[in-house]
Amino acid sequence: MDSPLLQTYISQLQGQLLDDLCTSVPALTELYQYYVRLQSKRLRPRLILLMAQATNGLGSAWSKKQCLPGPLQVEENDCSLNQSGLANVILPEQLRLAEVIEMIHVATLMHDDVIDESPLRRGAPSAPAQFGNKQSILGGDALLARALMLSASLGVPEVVTNVASVLSTLVEGELLQAQDTMTPVKQTSDDESRKPGSSDWDSYLKKTYMKTASLFSRALSCTVILGGATESDPLRDIASEFGSQLGMAFQIVDDILDFEGGEAMGKPVTADLHLGLATAPVLFALEENDEMQQLVDRRFQEPGDVQRATMIVKSTNALPRAGAVARAYAQKAHDALAPLPASPAKVALQCLAMGVIARDH
Amino acid sequence: MDSPLLQTYISQLQGQLLDDLCTSVPALTELYQYYVRLQSKRLRPRLILLMAQATNGLGSAWSKKQCLPGPLQVEENDCSLNQSGLANVILPEQLRLAEVIEMIHVATLMHDDVIDESPLRRGAPSAPAQFGNKQSILGGDALLARALMLSASLGVPEVVTNVASVLSTLVEGELLQAQDTMTPVKQTSDDESRKPGSSDWDSYLKKTYMKTASLFSRALSCTVILGGATESDPLRDIASEFGSQLGMAFQIVDDILDFEGGEAMGKPVTADLHLGLATAPVLFALEENDEMQQLVDRRFQEPGDVQRATMIVKSTNALPRAGAVARAYAQKAHDALAPLPASPAKVALQCLAMGVIARDH
Repeated sequence: MDSPLLQTYISQLQGQLLDDLCTSVPALTELYQYYVRLQSKRLRPRLILLMAQATNGLGSAWSKKQCLPGPLQVEENDCSLNQSGLANVILPEQLRLAEVIEMIHVATLMHDDVIDESPLRRGAPSAPAQFGNKQSILGGDALLARALMLSASLGVPEVVTNVASVLSTLVEGELLQAQDTMTPVKQTSDDESRKPGSSDWDSYLKKTYMKTASLFSRALSCTVILGGATESDPLRDIASEFGSQLGMAFQIVDDILDFEGGEAMGKPVTADLHLGLATAPVLFALEENDEMQQLVDRRFQEPGDVQRATMIVKSTNALPRAGAVARAYAQKAHDALAPLPASPAKVALQCLAMGVIARDH
Repeated sequence: MDSPLLQTYISQLQGQLLDDLCTSVPALTELYQYYVRLQSKRLRPRLILLMAQATNGLGSAWSKKQCLPGPLQVEENDCSLNQSGLANVILPEQLRLAEVIEMIHVATLMHDDVIDESPLRRGAPSAPAQFGNKQSILGGDALLARALMLSASLGVPEVVTNVASVLSTLVEGELLQAQDTMTPVKQTSDDESRKPGSSDWDSYLKKTYMKTASLFSRALSCTVILGGATESDPLRDIASEFGSQLGMAFQIVDDILDFEGGEAMGKPVTADLHLGLATAPVLFALEENDEMQQLVDRRFQEPGDVQRATMIVKSTNALPRAGAVARAYAQKAHDALAPLPASPAKVALQCLAMGVIARDH
C-alpha cells in the first residue's frame, strides 16, 4: 500500500508523462500517450521514487541539491538539510528520471508488441492492434527520442550515458533472445548443461539480466547519482545491487506467470513457448522429464508441442523450483538494502521486493 | 571531388563506425554494421566534416579546443591557433558527431525499410530482407541507443539535446506523413490550395523540413557548437540555415528521383506513389492536369493509378518545376555561407549544395 505522499508523486508523474507526450497533432498525442494511459503498476517509477525517498540526504553531495517545488510544497518542512528529516523528499530530477525510464519501458513495449504480434497489452488492444505496425514502430521511436531529450535536460552527462546504456543493453538482450529462437539448440550429452550454472542457464540468466535487471539496476543507480551520491559513495552499489537482484526476480516471475496467467489478465498464455523460448520453468522441467529435450530442440514449433511442453512443466516441480530461484533473488534484493538507515521507504522497497514473487500478473 | 584530407577523415569515420558497432556476438555485429558497410555517399558526415573545416578557428571559444590527434598528425602544422591556418582542422568531437548522425540516419533507414517493406537498400537486400523484421526493428533501436551513448560521451548537454531532438523531429515528420496517407484528402474548391503556399504545399514542406532538413540543420549547428561557437555566435545561424536549405533541396530532389530513378539504382520506382504520398512533382502536376486530383484523392490505390499518375507527372512540367524549387533552396544554402571567409571547405560545401540538384541517385 503506497503512502499518501508516494501516491501524490505517482499522480504527478502521470501528469508529467501526459504533458511531455502532448503534441500539436491530436492523432500523434493519442499514439504517444496510448500505453501511458493504460492501467499499470508503474513498478519502475515506483522503485525510483522509493529509492529516492530511502536515500536522499545520505549522499555526500546532498547539500547542493534543491527539493521538489510545486504541488508538493506542503512537504516543505521535510526539506531542511537535516538528514533524518529528508527521508520523504524526492528531487525534481529524480521524478524526471522516473518519467524517462517509464517512457523507455513503454517505447520498448510498443516495439515488442509489433515484433511478437501481440493483440493485447494490459488487457486492452495492443498499439499495433490499435494503430498498426507503422505507427507503432515510429511511435516507439518517438517515445525513445522524447525520453532521451528529457534525460539530456537533466544536464548530468553520466545519467544520460546510463539512460542510453539502459536502452542499448535492453535491446541487445532482446536481440540475443531473438537469435536464440532462430538457431538450433546445441545438442549435448553433458547433463551439467541442463542445470543452473550450465550454458543453457548461463545464457538464460544473462539475457534475463540484459532484458530486465540491467534497467532496474542502472535506473536506481541514476536515482542516487541525482540524489548526490558521488562516484565512491557506497549508495551507488547498494542501489544498483538492489535493482539488479530485484530485476532478476521480477523477470523470472514473469516467465513463471507465462505458464500461469490467462487471457483474462491481458496476456496470451505461454507466449514464450510460442516464440520458441526456453525460460526457467522449461529449464527445470528438462531435468525431470526426458521428453522435454526434443520439444526444446525443435523450439516447440510442431503441432501440439506448446500444449505438451506446458503439460510437462505443470506436471513436474519446474514451477515451484523456478519460484524458489526468484525468491532467492528477491531475498538478495531485500538484503542489499540492509546498510540503509531505517525508513518507511526502505521498508516499502523491501516489501516490494518480496511482493514481486507473490504477484499474479 | 574530396580533398585527400577529407578522404582520410571519411575513412577514419568508417573505421570508427565499424568499431563502435562491434559486439562480442558476431551475428549482432553483422546486423549493426550491415547498413554502414553498404556503399554510401556519406552525405551527412561529409557536410559535418566540411562545415568543421570551413568554420573551425572562427568561433569565439576556439582557443580552448584541442585538435584531432592520431592518424592525422601529418596535419599538425595546420594545428596552430592561427585562425586562417585552421581551415582544415577537424576536432575529434566533430568526427564523433558525424558518426552519431550517420548512425541515427542508418537506424531510421532500418526502421523505414521494415515499415515500407522495401526489398532493397542501396542496391543490396534491405535489412528486413536480409535479417527479418524482428532483427531490423531491434537492430534500429540498438543503433539509436549506441548513437545516443556516443553523443552523451561528448559531454556537451546542448549537443545531446540537439541529437535527441533530431531523432524526435525526424520521426514526427515520418509519423505526420504516415497519418497523411491514412486520412482522406480534404476536398476543396479553392484553387489556391493547389499552389505553393497553399495548405497542401505547407503540409508537404513542413514534413520535408521535419523528415530531412531539420537533421541537416541541427547537425551542422552542433558542428559549430562543438567547434566553440558560443550562444550568440553568428556561425550557429549560418550553419543551421545552410543545413536547413540544403536539406529541403535534397529531399525535393529525392522526391523527383522517385519518378526518375530505377531499380538499377537500388530503389524501387514511384515508391512514394505506392505509399499514397503526394510530393512536389504531384503537387505541380495537379495544377496542370485535372485528372490528377482524383488519383490524389484516392491515394493512388486503385489498379493502374500509380502508372497513370506517373504518366501525368512526366507529361506535364511538374518535374522541371519541382527541380526549380529544389534549385532555389540549393541556391539559398549556397548563399547562406557567404559570410564565411574564403576556404577550400567553404567552396566544397557550396559545390555540394549545388551538386545536390544535379545528383541522379
